[in-house]
Amino acid sequence: MSQNAARNLGPATALTCRECGETYDLGPRYACELCFGPLEVSYDHTGVTRETIESGPRNIWRYRGLLPVPSNVADTPNTEPGFTRLVRADNLAESLGLRSLWVKDDSGNPTHSFKDRVVAVALAAARELGFKVLACPSTGNLANAVAAAAARAGIRSAVFVPSDLERQKIITTAVYGGTFVTVDGNYDDVNRLASELAGEQEDWAFVNVNVRPYYAEGSKTIGYEIAEQLGWRLPEQIVIPIASGSQLTKIDKAFQEFIRLGLVEDRPYKIFGAQATGCSPVSAAFKAGHDVVQPVKPSTIAKSLAIGNPADGPYVLDAVRRTGGAIEDVSDEEVVDSIGLLARTEGIFGETAGGVTLGALRKLLSAGVLDPDAETVFINSGDGLKTLDAVAPVAKPSANIAPTLEAFRKAGLA
Amino acid sequence: MSQNAARNLGPATALTCRECGETYDLGPRYACELCFGPLEVSYDHTGVTRETIESGPRNIWRYRGLLPVPSNVADTPNTEPGFTRLVRADNLAESLGLRSLWVKDDSGNPTHSFKDRVVAVALAAARELGFKVLACPSTGNLANAVAAAAARAGIRSAVFVPSDLERQKIITTAVYGGTFVTVDGNYDDVNRLASELAGEQEDWAFVNVNVRPYYAEGSKTIGYEIAEQLGWRLPEQIVIPIASGSQLTKIDKAFQEFIRLGLVEDRPYKIFGAQATGCSPVSAAFKAGHDVVQPVKPSTIAKSLAIGNPADGPYVLDAVRRTGGAIEDVSDEEVVDSIGLLARTEGIFGETAGGVTLGALRKLLSAGVLDPDAETVFINSGDGLKTLDAVAPVAKPSANIAPTLEAFRKAGLA
Ligand SMILES: Cc1ncc(COP(=O)(O)O)c(C=O)c1O
Ligand SMILES: Cc1ncc(COP(=O)(O)O)c(C=O)c1O
Ligand SMILES: [Zn+2]
Ligand SMILES: [Zn+2]
Repeated sequence: MSQNAARNLGPATALTCRECGETYDLGPRYACELCFGPLEVSYDHTGVTRETIESGPRNIWRYRGLLPVPSNVADTPNTEPGFTRLVRADNLAESLGLRSLWVKDDSGNPTHSFKDRVVAVALAAARELGFKVLACPSTGNLANAVAAAAARAGIRSAVFVPSDLERQKIITTAVYGGTFVTVDGNYDDVNRLASELAGEQEDWAFVNVNVRPYYAEGSKTIGYEIAEQLGWRLPEQIVIPIASGSQLTKIDKAFQEFIRLGLVEDRPYKIFGAQATGCSPVSAAFKAGHDVVQPVKPSTIAKSLAIGNPADGPYVLDAVRRTGGAIEDVSDEEVVDSIGLLARTEGIFGETAGGVTLGALRKLLSAGVLDPDAETVFINSGDGLKTLDAVAPVAKPSANIAPTLEAFRKAGLA
Repeated sequence: MSQNAARNLGPATALTCRECGETYDLGPRYACELCFGPLEVSYDHTGVTRETIESGPRNIWRYRGLLPVPSNVADTPNTEPGFTRLVRADNLAESLGLRSLWVKDDSGNPTHSFKDRVVAVALAAARELGFKVLACPSTGNLANAVAAAAARAGIRSAVFVPSDLERQKIITTAVYGGTFVTVDGNYDDVNRLASELAGEQEDWAFVNVNVRPYYAEGSKTIGYEIAEQLGWRLPEQIVIPIASGSQLTKIDKAFQEFIRLGLVEDRPYKIFGAQATGCSPVSAAFKAGHDVVQPVKPSTIAKSLAIGNPADGPYVLDAVRRTGGAIEDVSDEEVVDSIGLLARTEGIFGETAGGVTLGALRKLLSAGVLDPDAETVFINSGDGLKTLDAVAPVAKPSANIAPTLEAFRKAGLA
């Protein structure tokens, strides 16, 4: 019996090096032994149709036939993320002069960010691969998602975050129990420590380090859902935030898979990336026409995107250039302004990452890079409740009054 | 043409006084002219089947045939709340010694509480009734929901809250724009001011005051969803938080409607109510065997439940006694402890209201009032992110370290 057959990872067939193409049996690997390139899951997707998907549960497991998870994955306790709202944003579209705009609102996930998707897939794969602890370095959202998913699965978690993280994300991780370590350093320091620990702690699945090939596949579900929710159709333009760059590359992969499987019509789409100027290594590389990404030291209120040394940077540049898109970065002020605009026009309170994404969309539109007549989707990948400090200076009550009609009248608000 | 025919409120046929039974045409009324009793929506529910419901959208509008809203309600911009997770809580059940336990997790709604449901129904009815402004007094969650829904609908909001509310709920309301007034007083003071304003501002729909009969119907959708998600079956026991008491009475109404329509088997269920001891007028009345509720001055960390003079108190007592249930109240310490237990066992971070509800469940179970062998559901009606201060003292990282393997080893966490 081959090692693959022993693993129940559904349609997954192998791990393939993104750089040299070498293939490996499915297992707890993440880097190529020949060239150190990142490994990616390969599949046999035979038999996946619109009907098999539509008959599945209303969460990411409807796409289990496209993910490296057991076919009975929905039966084991997990947070059941996904199938979040795709909101038609007519008010916002009108205020921006866009013809057709949608927000994919991933704040509706169990811990209120898209990270519940990747963690659910990582958890399922980690179980199959025999790991005992679910771990991660995190800029915050991943911490919440890992701690919650491990609690629900009844296994231990071990989470590492920069100690200057938003208070919201600290408390929201600690509440789930598990081992939770704040680290004096930035995310890239924490990530390095996690890589070292992954080498030592054999039972620990660091979801975004040693289980990363499986974990990353979870972001494909954002792309699948957008296409399905549009009525089995790809958008013409999509704007996606970039931290490590994984989400962006996997949405592209999802669209490619749907085209190849004949689930959507094969027509061109353009992928646009969004970063905060205070941490914009991929945007800088794009603008300079480079193929490699120069690491930076992050300084931005968009802490969830503050990865100065993005693992998937080169693949982001590939996807964006191949589809004819672009990458833009925005100032912290533009982030805050865009959070407010989204809230006031559509009643959606995104986190700083959402502000970055809408901010980049606006800038690309003003510059004539985005086509105002093409159907456009942007991702709100997290929740404003986790980054309250960003908007606190501008989100204030209209007035404070005594509890009387007279006081109300004096305030002049009628 | 009668006034009713002019209003497109779907299956709603009239407003009926809960006290004297007098009926009124559908309109912007909320109190009986004869006896000042509260008015409730009456219906013609002919034609509603499991099939008509199942073919509807995956949100509260699948139940539009049971709500006072136009049949095309899903087409007008709204926050599309509902169909939140019903989570099988095996870990928690085991730790409590319960055979079968479910959490209805309403933190997955767009503004992360069940209030999105009632506001969506109120908005739809308010539009039909010709109101121009969506308003409310609120203990916080309703404020978020009204401000967000009005923003999305493109109409003005006017929201009134006690000025000592959680910072989270202040910022999360202000961000949506609209008129937002903090009031020096407790909720009951704010509520009184709102009632006075409702008399003056003809165009303002105070969702929980002058549009309350329509608004309150939205809570029925929690009951509908639980029954449908259990596979068209009622639970044997359900534990529900009480502020005004509306949610509890409407879940009971939902179960009764499903029985009457033959959508579920007619078998007994028991309704249990939960309050914080620092604001437990309904629990006190229940324990004392009274039919009326004596108002109190609230003092509890469960601010979303801090209504000292609950409008639906007597009807709560009715429903609980009629079904053979009970009402319990818990200390602030028990609230915090139960928030932690739910998080650690199921990966669900509830707000203080959820802690109250689980706390009451535990207390009723210990006292032998809840049957450990009966299938039980409890409501997590809000999100822990909005009441972080409650758990901040206990939800702390395990350690803070330097970014080195050595520091990790010294911390003794492997
Ligand atoms: C809210 C949010 N959006 C987007 C991202 C970017 O994800 P990726 O690392 O896949 O580029 C993150 C990463 O932490 C995030 O937390
Ligand atoms: C989170 C939460 N749960 C429960 C309730 C209780 O609702 P009701 O007033 O319908 O009893 C409220 C009311 O504000 C609430 O905010
Ligand atoms: Zn290689
Ligand atoms: Zn009457």
